[in-house]
Amino acid sequence: MYLPSLFLFSLLVLTPISTALVQDFCVADLSLSNTPSGYPCKKASHVTEKDFVYHGLAAAGNTTNIISAAVTPAFDAQFPGVNGLGVSIARLDLAPGGVIPLHTHPAASEILVVIQGSICAGFISSFDNVIYFKTLFKGDVMVFPQGLLHFQINSGKTPALGFASFGGQNPGLQITDFALFANDFPTELVAKTTFLDVAQIKKLKGVLGGKN
Amino acid sequence: MYLPSLFLFSLLVLTPISTALVQDFCVADLSLSNTPSGYPCKKASHVTEKDFVYHGLAAAGNTTNIISAAVTPAFDAQFPGVNGLGVSIARLDLAPGGVIPLHTHPAASEILVVIQGSICAGFISSFDNVIYFKTLFKGDVMVFPQGLLHFQINSGKTPALGFASFGGQNPGLQITDFALFANDFPTELVAKTTFLDVAQIKKLKGVLGGKN
Amino acid sequence: MYLPSLFLFSLLVLTPISTALVQDFCVADLSLSNTPSGYPCKKASHVTEKDFVYHGLAAAGNTTNIISAAVTPAFDAQFPGVNGLGVSIARLDLAPGGVIPLHTHPAASEILVVIQGSICAGFISSFDNVIYFKTLFKGDVMVFPQGLLHFQINSGKTPALGFASFGGQNPGLQITDFALFANDFPTELVAKTTFLDVAQIKKLKGVLGGKN
Amino acid sequence: MYLPSLFLFSLLVLTPISTALVQDFCVADLSLSNTPSGYPCKKASHVTEKDFVYHGLAAAGNTTNIISAAVTPAFDAQFPGVNGLGVSIARLDLAPGGVIPLHTHPAASEILVVIQGSICAGFISSFDNVIYFKTLFKGDVMVFPQGLLHFQINSGKTPALGFASFGGQNPGLQITDFALFANDFPTELVAKTTFLDVAQIKKLKGVLGGKN
Amino acid sequence: MYLPSLFLFSLLVLTPISTALVQDFCVADLSLSNTPSGYPCKKASHVTEKDFVYHGLAAAGNTTNIISAAVTPAFDAQFPGVNGLGVSIARLDLAPGGVIPLHTHPAASEILVVIQGSICAGFISSFDNVIYFKTLFKGDVMVFPQGLLHFQINSGKTPALGFASFGGQNPGLQITDFALFANDFPTELVAKTTFLDVAQIKKLKGVLGGKN
Amino acid sequence: MYLPSLFLFSLLVLTPISTALVQDFCVADLSLSNTPSGYPCKKASHVTEKDFVYHGLAAAGNTTNIISAAVTPAFDAQFPGVNGLGVSIARLDLAPGGVIPLHTHPAASEILVVIQGSICAGFISSFDNVIYFKTLFKGDVMVFPQGLLHFQINSGKTPALGFASFGGQNPGLQITDFALFANDFPTELVAKTTFLDVAQIKKLKGVLGGKN
Repeated sequence: MYLPSLFLFSLLVLTPISTALVQDFCVADLSLSNTPSGYPCKKASHVTEKDFVYHGLAAAGNTTNIISAAVTPAFDAQFPGVNGLGVSIARLDLAPGGVIPLHTHPAASEILVVIQGSICAGFISSFDNVIYFKTLFKGDVMVFPQGLLHFQINSGKTPALGFASFGGQNPGLQITDFALFANDFPTELVAKTTFLDVAQIKKLKGVLGGKN
Repeated sequence: MYLPSLFLFSLLVLTPISTALVQDFCVADLSLSNTPSGYPCKKASHVTEKDFVYHGLAAAGNTTNIISAAVTPAFDAQFPGVNGLGVSIARLDLAPGGVIPLHTHPAASEILVVIQGSICAGFISSFDNVIYFKTLFKGDVMVFPQGLLHFQINSGKTPALGFASFGGQNPGLQITDFALFANDFPTELVAKTTFLDVAQIKKLKGVLGGKN
Repeated sequence: MYLPSLFLFSLLVLTPISTALVQDFCVADLSLSNTPSGYPCKKASHVTEKDFVYHGLAAAGNTTNIISAAVTPAFDAQFPGVNGLGVSIARLDLAPGGVIPLHTHPAASEILVVIQGSICAGFISSFDNVIYFKTLFKGDVMVFPQGLLHFQINSGKTPALGFASFGGQNPGLQITDFALFANDFPTELVAKTTFLDVAQIKKLKGVLGGKN
Repeated sequence: MYLPSLFLFSLLVLTPISTALVQDFCVADLSLSNTPSGYPCKKASHVTEKDFVYHGLAAAGNTTNIISAAVTPAFDAQFPGVNGLGVSIARLDLAPGGVIPLHTHPAASEILVVIQGSICAGFISSFDNVIYFKTLFKGDVMVFPQGLLHFQINSGKTPALGFASFGGQNPGLQITDFALFANDFPTELVAKTTFLDVAQIKKLKGVLGGKN
Repeated sequence: MYLPSLFLFSLLVLTPISTALVQDFCVADLSLSNTPSGYPCKKASHVTEKDFVYHGLAAAGNTTNIISAAVTPAFDAQFPGVNGLGVSIARLDLAPGGVIPLHTHPAASEILVVIQGSICAGFISSFDNVIYFKTLFKGDVMVFPQGLLHFQINSGKTPALGFASFGGQNPGLQITDFALFANDFPTELVAKTTFLDVAQIKKLKGVLGGKN
Repeated sequence: MYLPSLFLFSLLVLTPISTALVQDFCVADLSLSNTPSGYPCKKASHVTEKDFVYHGLAAAGNTTNIISAAVTPAFDAQFPGVNGLGVSIARLDLAPGGVIPLHTHPAASEILVVIQGSICAGFISSFDNVIYFKTLFKGDVMVFPQGLLHFQINSGKTPALGFASFGGQNPGLQITDFALFANDFPTELVAKTTFLDVAQIKKLKGVLGGKN
């Protein structure tokens, strides 16, 4: 074996691969328009190991708020390295009494792992409205099927910490209360489509900043 | 060209195809266990044109009920011919004042076409809780993205009829009110995860048959 | 609860969602190059409820033509709101004697619902060339598997109306006659690959505008 | 390091993998009902290297037939090892003057590589009926998009050999002539949906064995 | 509103949904043959909240082994609730000096979150063999693209704990050393396909239990 | 039938289709940023039959190199016509004694067909490290599941030729030796994650051009 042939070999074998990188990964270029499959890819020559690591989940979220809880995501918008890879993750901090209100992820299923404290978590099936819920302790995991209403509650007296991983780069998050009471969804339409009393709707709109 | 060779030809070319039928279609055998991709296929020799046609949407649904509306589906369970084909359809009948309450389809996007009357339809985005709604008239179509909360209301004085088609053989249907108030979701957990008043919850559980 | 904390809460919970919109929807920006998964997304701030509603199917298509029928589509090119959502729809108008000639949709399965009149519809399986056809009346639905040859004929004495929904944003439409006789597919190649007589080919090319 | 710990290690690391085999492969058990995603898997303990190798393409297909050509497939029905893997292949033999008549593959795109002789191949786009065709020589490859009408003709004076690979385990094959003239598709319906003359239809039905 | 109508309503709206459950979830029935899309579904009536919760990751894996590390999975075989949902998770325990040797997951991308200690993790791109690696601390996350060689090493002096989540129900795990040295891959073929010295191969086969 | 109506007809039916081309195909515009689903599409008006044909596999690859073999790919980067179509192909030339070293394709399964000579090919399963290998002769085909380690060796005394087709437009190629020894993967990390002796690592880095 002599260098020229090795060089030749490298050329021959590596050439096809020189643009295969997007099969390896496609770090999101957030400056370009998104597509149905995710963001266009950052140039390979600009990609570094930093693109595949995210520090934003190291610190606890601020739970000084109405739900005494915080969701800190590492989705494609925060963590461009997951773009096109079909995975993402979020940190859940729940102070005692904290709750992640009823919500859905339209675009992915979720697995929750409890790291600290205890969390009562559950979801509701669509076909017969069965509620499945259980109290999880350190090291327990629970799966929440895509698109189904679910919740998490700190069921203990100490702060709870969990990580929720998703089978999608951007699972989305639709909090039912926010969808109903934190926007300008006309009160009469909310009442008509939920059977809730107008007074109840106005009360929660007051809390969550909804209008009309 | 003589018969033997033609026969030979048929054998040669048709052999591979003799089991290709499930690529053509896979009529659901509802007697077998479902799978993540749908029901196992009925034997090709048992398939007839009847498997691909469904008459169940020809008659109006009964709207003599709490919502003055009816949803009549042609999903895989009712219409086995759609199994594996990624499409299904449902009939919507709304009496004057009728409403399809706030709901999601966890597994598919929807297109509604209005055939008769007028329907006020809308959905709520998850990323910023924007409500998009509009009154639709005969021949208008509206699309509802997968997994997002949406509703339909008869906004006229006459019965309304529409057909909702889906990009999945079984889109699922999760009606928020049913998920909260028509099951044994403990009232205290409903309150905790929705901020609704207990009295409101108990009132709607009374109407929808919920317990606890 | 006091405003600052609520504000804080909103920030914490909403931040991740601020770019989740393309998971909610991806309204096509037709001015940009398409991709294998669909068109790049229009900026969320420019999206309105109008993007999710289409009026183009409200009026009957013009059936004063060779097939006495018209197909009026609401695919991604006409209805950008369906981009990335895996659904689309088209209106079928058939005058008495009208026909949608033998065709395929390379990219999606179809469900036809008959709204008015009667339609004789059918498709041909590939594995053994079985023809499945049936006459459909008001309210009947029929499914046509992806990529298989199928047709629709007005089998009545009055105009027929139907809506065809698809499990794709752009199902494509390949009309066999157009593929053979409405282009510059050389007559000798058409003959060689279909066994049709040259005279027959030239006759239909004359009707449909084909050359060579 | 001592054996017990190694043994322990093996257990720990291998346990999870003991049923991961279907992620590795899923050799078709043709005795069970197919599903929308393919055949159920043969037991791993019964799988051997023979399941991943197929000899059926080693011999030339018999071209003594009406098309002077033969298609010999290695789809899931013949080659169970491709089940679930999204690939398959077929051998094309074309005697001088041989032709693979106009056809589609409803379920996969195709790449043809010419091994011997010369082949004139082409396909027709659906959006504007453009015909793309070219004569291919030894070593040339051509791609045919899923679901589009295409053909192959031996354009030389010697036998031609090619291999067609597909992006699916069972691409399907719908030969237009067979769909129209080799079954019991009523002549009047064929005429109505293709504009072909009845005489032409009856002539080809006579050749291909069609009835009615 | 009176009970009969409510009852009627329930029937009307709930009927279609009575078999929609497999869209909600498809808990694996491990007693049936797997399919390319996952295991057939357990009967809905037998599903309980226990199917969606797994306790097997609560205890540390045994790291008294050759790699001073343990991988404890919650894939479909251990955690049937994830079947069909496109997510799974595993627990990583690394004693000081522990390492998860170079490996790939053929079927899913991975996100690692560090819970305790510090982990040096990296992967190698295929297109140009670039090595991306970084030392991760508590709360850091790193993504590993599907199918690429990667590793994790405890880079600290204390035990390290992490959770690896996957965008698939059964990501698979191919440890390069096991593939080369823990089976009966003939030494001469290993040498021929890796350029490793025979002595080196035999040494590692001795350690890992390989034969031939 | 008169021209105006035909013209009208054409407009009606062809309009929707005028942008359906990307469903037909999406020839890669390599000058634009790639996306997770592939390259944006070249303008239809610029597409010709040349885009669907590739001549680069007609000539044998240069096997005067360290492995006495050459892989010549027709992936999306070389053959833009396959973009978005889920297929690609490569030519394998192996001189006597030639070998394609152990490697994986992270993004697609492969089918190899032997055209000339004999090739000993095999792959290793991940779930239990079983090695499946066999000697293939002219016309034999073998399938290699996505992401699994596999190899090909010329087992004869004459040059061998094969074509490898893939169920993806860009399967990727990760050659284990290149991932370990042809980059700047620190020798101590290679040793730590593979258990290879440092001397062995340095020897191969010397051959393959690795550093550190």
